[in-house]
Amino acid sequence: MATRPTIADIARELQISKAAVSYALNGQPGVGEQTRQRVLDVARNLGWQPSASARALGGFHTKVIGLALARPAQTVAIESFFIRFLVGVETALAKRDWSLLLRIIGDHPDQEVEVYRKWWGEGRIDGVILVDERHRDPRITAVDELGLPAVLCGGPRRDTTMPCLWTDQAADAETLTDYLAGLGHRRIAHIAGPREFAHERGRQRGMQRAAARHGLDLLSRSAAYDAAAAVQATRSLMADPTTAPTAIVYANDLNAVAGQRELENAGFTVPQDVSVISWDDSPLTEMVATPITALARETEAYGEQAATVLLDRIAGVDRGRVRVTPSDIVIRDSTGPARAAR
Amino acid sequence: MATRPTIADIARELQISKAAVSYALNGQPGVGEQTRQRVLDVARNLGWQPSASARALGGFHTKVIGLALARPAQTVAIESFFIRFLVGVETALAKRDWSLLLRIIGDHPDQEVEVYRKWWGEGRIDGVILVDERHRDPRITAVDELGLPAVLCGGPRRDTTMPCLWTDQAADAETLTDYLAGLGHRRIAHIAGPREFAHERGRQRGMQRAAARHGLDLLSRSAAYDAAAAVQATRSLMADPTTAPTAIVYANDLNAVAGQRELENAGFTVPQDVSVISWDDSPLTEMVATPITALARETEAYGEQAATVLLDRIAGVDRGRVRVTPSDIVIRDSTGPARAAR
Repeated sequence: MATRPTIADIARELQISKAAVSYALNGQPGVGEQTRQRVLDVARNLGWQPSASARALGGFHTKVIGLALARPAQTVAIESFFIRFLVGVETALAKRDWSLLLRIIGDHPDQEVEVYRKWWGEGRIDGVILVDERHRDPRITAVDELGLPAVLCGGPRRDTTMPCLWTDQAADAETLTDYLAGLGHRRIAHIAGPREFAHERGRQRGMQRAAARHGLDLLSRSAAYDAAAAVQATRSLMADPTTAPTAIVYANDLNAVAGQRELENAGFTVPQDVSVISWDDSPLTEMVATPITALARETEAYGEQAATVLLDRIAGVDRGRVRVTPSDIVIRDSTGPARAAR
Repeated sequence: MATRPTIADIARELQISKAAVSYALNGQPGVGEQTRQRVLDVARNLGWQPSASARALGGFHTKVIGLALARPAQTVAIESFFIRFLVGVETALAKRDWSLLLRIIGDHPDQEVEVYRKWWGEGRIDGVILVDERHRDPRITAVDELGLPAVLCGGPRRDTTMPCLWTDQAADAETLTDYLAGLGHRRIAHIAGPREFAHERGRQRGMQRAAARHGLDLLSRSAAYDAAAAVQATRSLMADPTTAPTAIVYANDLNAVAGQRELENAGFTVPQDVSVISWDDSPLTEMVATPITALARETEAYGEQAATVLLDRIAGVDRGRVRVTPSDIVIRDSTGPARAAR
């Protein structure tokens, strides 16, 4: 098997010292112009490339950013948010010829810090994208202490100065609630994701505020981002007809699709009996039997923006707090006037 | 901002030479046991890590494998094959503490070779996974010439000795065709993906052979892996009622879902008028109004196997040609007896 050509191969080929080859390749004095030209020719013929390792030791950029994702592999494979985010990140990186070092580590957020510490300590990356911000998030302090350039998809937070892409969750909650209130719904349910995530807390506060403003009853549940949890929460909400909501807002596309199916299996008609909304738009919400009304978040653009803010930060330009454009609602067949209002 | 701790920091802290620190950290002679212990203590306190760059220069593994994907970003974001494959790859890597260097480069397969050449030449990776094998695939020779360890998701081919995971496309084609023949279908259509992909050619040959064996009429079309192309191909197949098929086999989940929707929009009933099958199973095929019969390919397991074969190859163990288990069919509502057979 062939091996990577090295400076030693060039030196052997030309019968000169490795030091002379190195001088020639790095444009340093110490070799004549003729030798330099012969070295460059042989290097090209052998397919020699400057070593990233050697350049990194010399203080150059690795041109790699890191992303460790602490989510169960099964959820990553089914819900569309992450792959769309990733495609956006890659779009931004491709424009500047950078690459992404990726690790999916399951549901162990503490291991994310270890992966970042290692990648950074070993000189593999120049920065990281922090996703899935948590309420008490050990990564923020750890990454700040390491001096590792980062962008936070979340925030804003008082305990760090790293640039962040913050989404006004309350504004999105108002978009949803205004729409449901306009359809005459007086009793709505919010099936949120796990409360440890900062964005879920923000949404919950926004839903409460908007419901209070409209004088609506708000029922809240917290569920994992998977189909089984959504089915369970839906079943418990609808069990007592005297307290059942006329509209349910789900945290993501997978939950909304599974929840709606449970409603239909249980004999409810969507949207005549219950309206359904997803906080995430995707092909899943669009292609089910009753296409689902959803917040149209521009996930690819969000990923692209995250990578761009990070690359700018690495280049020494701090964009600070970048506010993400609030989402619009895409109205489909799963929402309609509340039964009592007709 | 803090910076990465170096050997110089340890040397300064202990007022000894950098060489002494290096000897101590690398377990070489030249320093006493007491000094070695103090160096290790200070290194731990400072959070020092051995540099991957330095280790790579010393001939150690980077513990990184590469994957460049030449597909349009939009397709990557919607069809489920790639993210499920990626999750499988990550599962295998996580077990051995390796990482993945990822690049999505759009529809430019020639650029894949350049990315691999660069990554390998710069010492960033120890091997690559080649996906989306093409009929004339420039990557095979290029990667062999570079001496870059690789696993081919495809094959078997005569022009390379690299290990491969080969799928018997003809066996999968027979599974589909036997099933449709058993339902009485005599006129079936195969909407394949782009013919440049080796797996599409293999499937096409398998479909032809199986159709000949059963004495069925086979109509073939080739379409891009996106919704618009599937709609277009479906429309053209169904335009003439005297030649329209009673069953259509689609190349992937996205095409099957879009094609079935086109059939229903055009007034055909699935499966009474036309049966629909997808060559790829996913949440999309399961969650549409008429859940779609599909080949249940174990995509996560396939990704995990690809990474494992590559890691073994890097470790010097060549698994050769690994045959992937043939797929089973998952029967759902989109297939039934052919109209004429009832």
